[in-house]
Amino acid sequence: MIHILPAASEHHDAIWHIFHEVIQGGDAYVFAEHTSRAEALAYWLAPGHHAYVAVDGSGQVVGSYILKPNQPGRGAHVANGSYMTASSARGMGVGSIMAEHSIAEAERLGYRAIQFNIVVSTNGAAVRLWQRHGFKILATLPQAFQHAKLGYVDAYLMHRFVGEAPANATSSTESLH
Amino acid sequence: MIHILPAASEHHDAIWHIFHEVIQGGDAYVFAEHTSRAEALAYWLAPGHHAYVAVDGSGQVVGSYILKPNQPGRGAHVANGSYMTASSARGMGVGSIMAEHSIAEAERLGYRAIQFNIVVSTNGAAVRLWQRHGFKILATLPQAFQHAKLGYVDAYLMHRFVGEAPANATSSTESLH
Repeated sequence: MIHILPAASEHHDAIWHIFHEVIQGGDAYVFAEHTSRAEALAYWLAPGHHAYVAVDGSGQVVGSYILKPNQPGRGAHVANGSYMTASSARGMGVGSIMAEHSIAEAERLGYRAIQFNIVVSTNGAAVRLWQRHGFKILATLPQAFQHAKLGYVDAYLMHRFVGEAPANATSSTESLH
Repeated sequence: MIHILPAASEHHDAIWHIFHEVIQGGDAYVFAEHTSRAEALAYWLAPGHHAYVAVDGSGQVVGSYILKPNQPGRGAHVANGSYMTASSARGMGVGSIMAEHSIAEAERLGYRAIQFNIVVSTNGAAVRLWQRHGFKILATLPQAFQHAKLGYVDAYLMHRFVGEAPANATSSTESLH
């Protein structure tokens, strides 16, 4: 059974462990492999970020995610989210649980939408996860991610409204130019 | 005659004057009207940003722009740019001069592309300026900008390669889903 809790200082070691593991792959997340613990935690837990951990039945932290404004001021009603799961917990549905939790939490925090700025196109599991949870690809950013093994690969901008979608919002297909 | 120079401390007053003027409109730039001089300059001139000013024949600063990595690490080869022009200098081509300068400068700095994350769709002059300078709309971000007069309006993600476009890059139309 996975529970989601607000991240607290007792979780910092586990967050850094997962963060470090994820960036070593060089295939899913923009932070460079040499990012330090201090840099990683300063980013993940920055003022204004809401940070959460996913904890399994034994109390082990198996994932973490953050929500923050994607832009300041006049763009701050759209959230940006980042998510990571421990490799030891893959296939346990941690990503889906964090996805659903974050959508509800974004609504509770007053956001109108969640946007992901750089979902690596070759990370099929992540792309399918977000699509299952209602996110749409609004753009393909050509060669926007430098993949450790594949070189420059495309990235997706993904988006979904939270709560009720505005009636007058352009759809993801109508809106493309 | 407009010249572009690296921003120096003698330009800070002018940069803040233009920044403050632009955000008062609430129709083009995400920073809130109440952004302070200290916050504005801390952002505009942050470490890692390349900042420039456009200066007219009389030495007056009539515009400013910055280039910075749009993402850390594995996304840092794509630049993000922000540009602003003094209202007193509208129609003098300052935007075009900064646009061309920034495209050349981005290439010189080793970037492969420039991406704008939130071009306000109702700011037709800006959208047309960027299109004239080779930027393409890769996505419409529905209701992503809270316009001071119009409420939530769409914003565009715009992009262009700098230098030679990679032969295997997806085009802006093929890439849309």
